[in-house]
Amino acid sequence: MAYKDEKLHEVKVFKDPVHRYVHVRDRVIWDLIGTPEFQRLRRIKQLGTTYLTFHGAEHSRFNHSLGVYEIVRRIINNFKDREHWNEKNRLLCLCAALLHDLGHGPFSHSFEKVFKLDHEYYTQQIILGDTESNRILEKVYPGFAQEVADVINKTHSNKLVVSLISSQIDADRMDYLQRDSYFTGVSYGHFDMERILRVMRPIEDQVVIKSTGMHAVEDYIMSRYQMYWQVYFHPVTRSAEVILTKIFDRVKFLYESGYHFKLKPTHFISFFNKEENLQDYLNLDEAVVHYYFQMWQHEEDKILSDLCERFINRRLFKYVEFDPNKMMNSWVTLTQLFKDMNIDPEYYLVVDSSSDLPYDFYRPGEEGERLPIHLLMPNGELRELSRESEVVEAISGKKRTDHKLYYPLDRLEQAKKKDKKTVQQIMRILHGQGDV
Amino acid sequence: MAYKDEKLHEVKVFKDPVHRYVHVRDRVIWDLIGTPEFQRLRRIKQLGTTYLTFHGAEHSRFNHSLGVYEIVRRIINNFKDREHWNEKNRLLCLCAALLHDLGHGPFSHSFEKVFKLDHEYYTQQIILGDTESNRILEKVYPGFAQEVADVINKTHSNKLVVSLISSQIDADRMDYLQRDSYFTGVSYGHFDMERILRVMRPIEDQVVIKSTGMHAVEDYIMSRYQMYWQVYFHPVTRSAEVILTKIFDRVKFLYESGYHFKLKPTHFISFFNKEENLQDYLNLDEAVVHYYFQMWQHEEDKILSDLCERFINRRLFKYVEFDPNKMMNSWVTLTQLFKDMNIDPEYYLVVDSSSDLPYDFYRPGEEGERLPIHLLMPNGELRELSRESEVVEAISGKKRTDHKLYYPLDRLEQAKKKDKKTVQQIMRILHGQGDV
Amino acid sequence: MAYKDEKLHEVKVFKDPVHRYVHVRDRVIWDLIGTPEFQRLRRIKQLGTTYLTFHGAEHSRFNHSLGVYEIVRRIINNFKDREHWNEKNRLLCLCAALLHDLGHGPFSHSFEKVFKLDHEYYTQQIILGDTESNRILEKVYPGFAQEVADVINKTHSNKLVVSLISSQIDADRMDYLQRDSYFTGVSYGHFDMERILRVMRPIEDQVVIKSTGMHAVEDYIMSRYQMYWQVYFHPVTRSAEVILTKIFDRVKFLYESGYHFKLKPTHFISFFNKEENLQDYLNLDEAVVHYYFQMWQHEEDKILSDLCERFINRRLFKYVEFDPNKMMNSWVTLTQLFKDMNIDPEYYLVVDSSSDLPYDFYRPGEEGERLPIHLLMPNGELRELSRESEVVEAISGKKRTDHKLYYPLDRLEQAKKKDKKTVQQIMRILHGQGDV
Amino acid sequence: MAYKDEKLHEVKVFKDPVHRYVHVRDRVIWDLIGTPEFQRLRRIKQLGTTYLTFHGAEHSRFNHSLGVYEIVRRIINNFKDREHWNEKNRLLCLCAALLHDLGHGPFSHSFEKVFKLDHEYYTQQIILGDTESNRILEKVYPGFAQEVADVINKTHSNKLVVSLISSQIDADRMDYLQRDSYFTGVSYGHFDMERILRVMRPIEDQVVIKSTGMHAVEDYIMSRYQMYWQVYFHPVTRSAEVILTKIFDRVKFLYESGYHFKLKPTHFISFFNKEENLQDYLNLDEAVVHYYFQMWQHEEDKILSDLCERFINRRLFKYVEFDPNKMMNSWVTLTQLFKDMNIDPEYYLVVDSSSDLPYDFYRPGEEGERLPIHLLMPNGELRELSRESEVVEAISGKKRTDHKLYYPLDRLEQAKKKDKKTVQQIMRILHGQGDV
Repeated sequence: MAYKDEKLHEVKVFKDPVHRYVHVRDRVIWDLIGTPEFQRLRRIKQLGTTYLTFHGAEHSRFNHSLGVYEIVRRIINNFKDREHWNEKNRLLCLCAALLHDLGHGPFSHSFEKVFKLDHEYYTQQIILGDTESNRILEKVYPGFAQEVADVINKTHSNKLVVSLISSQIDADRMDYLQRDSYFTGVSYGHFDMERILRVMRPIEDQVVIKSTGMHAVEDYIMSRYQMYWQVYFHPVTRSAEVILTKIFDRVKFLYESGYHFKLKPTHFISFFNKEENLQDYLNLDEAVVHYYFQMWQHEEDKILSDLCERFINRRLFKYVEFDPNKMMNSWVTLTQLFKDMNIDPEYYLVVDSSSDLPYDFYRPGEEGERLPIHLLMPNGELRELSRESEVVEAISGKKRTDHKLYYPLDRLEQAKKKDKKTVQQIMRILHGQGDV
Repeated sequence: MAYKDEKLHEVKVFKDPVHRYVHVRDRVIWDLIGTPEFQRLRRIKQLGTTYLTFHGAEHSRFNHSLGVYEIVRRIINNFKDREHWNEKNRLLCLCAALLHDLGHGPFSHSFEKVFKLDHEYYTQQIILGDTESNRILEKVYPGFAQEVADVINKTHSNKLVVSLISSQIDADRMDYLQRDSYFTGVSYGHFDMERILRVMRPIEDQVVIKSTGMHAVEDYIMSRYQMYWQVYFHPVTRSAEVILTKIFDRVKFLYESGYHFKLKPTHFISFFNKEENLQDYLNLDEAVVHYYFQMWQHEEDKILSDLCERFINRRLFKYVEFDPNKMMNSWVTLTQLFKDMNIDPEYYLVVDSSSDLPYDFYRPGEEGERLPIHLLMPNGELRELSRESEVVEAISGKKRTDHKLYYPLDRLEQAKKKDKKTVQQIMRILHGQGDV
Repeated sequence: MAYKDEKLHEVKVFKDPVHRYVHVRDRVIWDLIGTPEFQRLRRIKQLGTTYLTFHGAEHSRFNHSLGVYEIVRRIINNFKDREHWNEKNRLLCLCAALLHDLGHGPFSHSFEKVFKLDHEYYTQQIILGDTESNRILEKVYPGFAQEVADVINKTHSNKLVVSLISSQIDADRMDYLQRDSYFTGVSYGHFDMERILRVMRPIEDQVVIKSTGMHAVEDYIMSRYQMYWQVYFHPVTRSAEVILTKIFDRVKFLYESGYHFKLKPTHFISFFNKEENLQDYLNLDEAVVHYYFQMWQHEEDKILSDLCERFINRRLFKYVEFDPNKMMNSWVTLTQLFKDMNIDPEYYLVVDSSSDLPYDFYRPGEEGERLPIHLLMPNGELRELSRESEVVEAISGKKRTDHKLYYPLDRLEQAKKKDKKTVQQIMRILHGQGDV
Repeated sequence: MAYKDEKLHEVKVFKDPVHRYVHVRDRVIWDLIGTPEFQRLRRIKQLGTTYLTFHGAEHSRFNHSLGVYEIVRRIINNFKDREHWNEKNRLLCLCAALLHDLGHGPFSHSFEKVFKLDHEYYTQQIILGDTESNRILEKVYPGFAQEVADVINKTHSNKLVVSLISSQIDADRMDYLQRDSYFTGVSYGHFDMERILRVMRPIEDQVVIKSTGMHAVEDYIMSRYQMYWQVYFHPVTRSAEVILTKIFDRVKFLYESGYHFKLKPTHFISFFNKEENLQDYLNLDEAVVHYYFQMWQHEEDKILSDLCERFINRRLFKYVEFDPNKMMNSWVTLTQLFKDMNIDPEYYLVVDSSSDLPYDFYRPGEEGERLPIHLLMPNGELRELSRESEVVEAISGKKRTDHKLYYPLDRLEQAKKKDKKTVQQIMRILHGQGDV
């Protein structure tokens, strides 16, 4: 039998707390799950530093990737006898779903920012490079790996397949909302996925939603909205991200200044030099990063050791709201006061904006690449969701940025003993009562 | 105000997927959660290698420790106005609950086995040693740390307090059953905790259960029974434990043989030499262990690199049932056949027995230290649970050991090309059709 | 001990699927639950005819009333030590919560419409009249029944107490959203009540919400919005209500015309004559109404017997959208065509508007009586919710009415055999392709 | 297209709180659900008087019947390509599942006991008699109604089909355990049905369970055990059943004595005379019974009016444990004392035994008709469950009867004023301290 048609003797199931069971029948899928590249996702948390805010959020990208696969499997199962659906695309969809996050690195958000990397690029590299995953995909038929990569990259010519994997209501989003809600324990993130799956219809170039399912989709959009503000943009998580970013910044700076490390940043050097290759990237995971941070607590450099100690022991920065339009003067003053006290403002007085984070809860049309949600009306017409739903209209397209100013309160409190006045002045400015 | 009576301005809550919210009001508890020793529990998984079987089981001991604290907090809340309950013991109970697992190391089960360590010993060391936790506890009053340690150690003179923290139906068990069930996603592990908490009654020297709650307790005991056989003793998890144990064995052996490591086992050396101190122990966590394993994939030693690669990439051993009474001859034969093929049976043909694992689902009287469950009858009498409940009686006290023989099927399959006959003979024996 | 301070020996608990347990400690509450007036609520469904659409929705008002009581109990428990809260109002709140729906009759919506009654009026009557409930309340202290009635009636001078029982985010709404969601099985209706309870603060004249809880409240408002459109206004339920209303209309008409009933409408006669007294009202429940409907299936009058048979056997009317602005001509034509076919349009061609139903998902200020939700900002200011939340703003204050035209498709299909042309013409008009 | 192959245009779904959705595709099923006989099940509670103990248990047999249908539908869906499974039996199984409880009457347990009826007999009558259900079934093919009746009656020659509908682990039991648990809100009744469905295998003459699923089945058996003792045999429910039985007894006695009723028991007369026909039976439902009870509160006969008032207003009897071996003397004394006080012991001093209730949580072999559960071992052998599972063995086959003595405490308390001594003597005997 051709490898692509090979089935396991018995359906294998993974017990999954979100979808109850993940079912695998295809040999190809089973083999892909077994690759080192895919197993590596077990060592990368789905929500980065969010576990420091919501202690339950310790789940990995491995978890999520299986979930996305399972949702696509169920969608396709419903499509079986539908017009416009070609069963030949089944395996392509399943593989793209399973592998869509393969290129994520440890604490992707901060890491990519500092090193100017892009996990989507690495997903492509892993699928197309010299990897076990690539060899398995190419066994399906030569060129299959490229097809999978194209679907994930949204450049594949089959737009219907692409929209299954990435659109405003794709399997990716449906899995992570439910999964992140389950593991954090928040009560947002629930919607009636079974109903949404039942009202999904394949048409020529996209998946659309029967209009009778509009309210279920509204509920999904609202879940997303709530999850963004309650979980993904949580200011405490962003405090941890700030520290993380500053650690990478500092290490890079020290390396470039010729600082003598007790533990050399071996795993990172090729990234500093922009010479990293695929294997360098694959060697990274969160265990490795943690190991360095733990060791660097003992470095001579006070800033590096302090930041690492903060990250490891969760001694995070505190924050106040920051309005860039009104507070620039305060900011300049604060910077100077921090310098006066020998606290480097570059590392210890940091503005973070939520819009830096992947914000997409519903913006039809924007970005070009991300398909809006279309409703299929009883008369066969297509209508864009936000034209039909007042609720969605209300929250779509608005870019709401939230800025916060992060600083180490504990450090200021310690400094109070020596320099009470300056600290009091700082606190007054931070709480909006002083200076300006 | 005395430190022990200090309250936070507002109750702090942790969102918890199992108990919905964990509530902290006491400054002491808040400070203990913030210590490096307690934060370290975030880097140690509650269920060790179980995540390789149930992918959801990625939750940490930090999670569980908060949960146990919360349950004890609720129990005590119910006890407030009861006879026999002394509100002065409140903080002692809460601290003991929070810290009872503080001494767990990375992959405790295998690690402790190889290095002959005991996490309970380390819990004592951390609470009584030169640590932030100790300093906080001693601020409550001098000697308080020792009291907390005694409660956890079950040697404290107040037996009622001890039984809250460790008995056959303590907060520890109630938390882990529900938590492990939640994160693995299995349907066992549910019982009506709210009802159990309501029928708990403090008496002089223990916590007992009003007899009207017997069925809820039966349900709890059955949950435990099911969780043991379905989750905790799962043969795939044990396969990962076997590999883990063999890695530690091998590293120790190599170190003692003077092998030249590419990456020296720095963090482990004091353990090899039995000279470890508290700080050595605290420096360990699962990130560190993962780092070594990842690096050791590239060691010269074939056994070490192979075992590490297996662990990292989840290429586990397969298993067959093993009956020590009937299969000793087969075992001897297999050992020889493995040697013939140059596969070291010491590392690649391993018998594992479930009774090695903490098996305690209900054994009244055994162990001395673990209090059986007593029912409080309407007439005030106490009756031991298994005398009243047929269900509990049926499953208690029976030591059911399950033996399995683990081996690397992939390796044998590869070897088939060269030495088909030997491999076939091995397979026949493993599947009970050959030799004997 | 004064009756009002009397406690039960042990807390009594009711197992409740929504709140897990309902706890009763006060003798007064226990006694009120035992009255015939309160037990009568077991025979009145919470959602009237909704069970004909969602088969799970068979729960009674008894259920819901206990739930509202339990929520208020929990809120008050949180208020215990708060400024502005007077523990003396505890029992008043609990009684008002428990009894707030006491005056509901069978299928209130249709029944009240036809007979021009008002369940709120009857709640007052029962509490203040010659009933067991009244006697119990007056044992608390003379005048207490009047106070309870005033709170329910929103005329009590203590506005804080009133707002606990009736406001845009009161215990009533919080219970029914969760309860109706649970029993119907829909996925809407979830929100984090525990968090909302924790951010509720009593101030002088109302309960407000700490602004940090805004998102939880948004989620609650959205749940309400979804429940209205998905459950409460469901067109199939409205079809059953249409039939119900028409049965009452017909019986009244027949009675007034001197029709000779096989089974006289004894229980209803005082209502026809507008001479009903409290006991007549209390004698009604849904079992009684069902009994009559069942018997009236065998009446001579074809319209009455047909409508009753439809209700009992769930042979409901079908519906099409009806736009009063565009379809008046069609309506006139249809009326005539129905008459031509000897189908009385008064009973068989009915326009129903959702705005007839209790539509209140969020209208600050409107109605005067229903308090809007106020957020308590960190600086102590109060802000009305819809000014702070874009989502709430989007859905508030808009009166969205939905009209449908109901008709008996089965009857038309039967008539087709005789008069195909007329039926075809009717169907064309109904589906918007004919006449106008 | 043949009626039996007719499909609905689109799958119809019922929102179900237990199974999420019930799916109907076959025209036959859809039509059966629409019959008056099936709709009548909406007016009969699944758990009779249990709602007086667990207020959530207000769900109807309509609910449950749809649930059983849905489970069988899923099982068959899994069987599709299995050996031994003949797709031709699909519709037979679905119809039998849907209709298996069609003959239940109001408060079946008590009603059948008093009138010596049997709901299984009526299920047969309805399916085979002059009913809409029968006409629909016969349209499938002549003789189909008889086949459906035979399957429900366990006399059909296809034993595999029979075992799907009635065995120790059939769809009936799986639905009611989950459903009754959901609506009462108790935490028992959970098991992993999805897993059980996946390990079910059709063989020639029965459905068996792959041995790997044994623990899931154990969990199911334990759920059943707990539900029996916690819910189905609850002593408060039995108190309501006692009163119900005594009402029927009294009405029958009065009728036979020529008593002149204010409201004649018209619906019951044919049952008193043992002349009832199918239509008489179908005319009964719980609304009708409630109507009579409500009216009979005003009868002259003190016993009838009192019992009815008790039932309607839930003024139930209290109970004490009753050991027939030890308490016969007490019983004789009590009977006399009751008579002395003019309280008729026939109606007011009642022994009820739980074994009267359908007790079947696991008795292999017993009854002949009810198939035990067989495990399918890896070697193809079949093993009876209780031979493999210690837990099941522990609770199977033991007939545990629980006797209670019911009496009206309120009545005795009233009587105390007149005859304190006798009442005190009664109370002493009831509480085991007197007489003997």
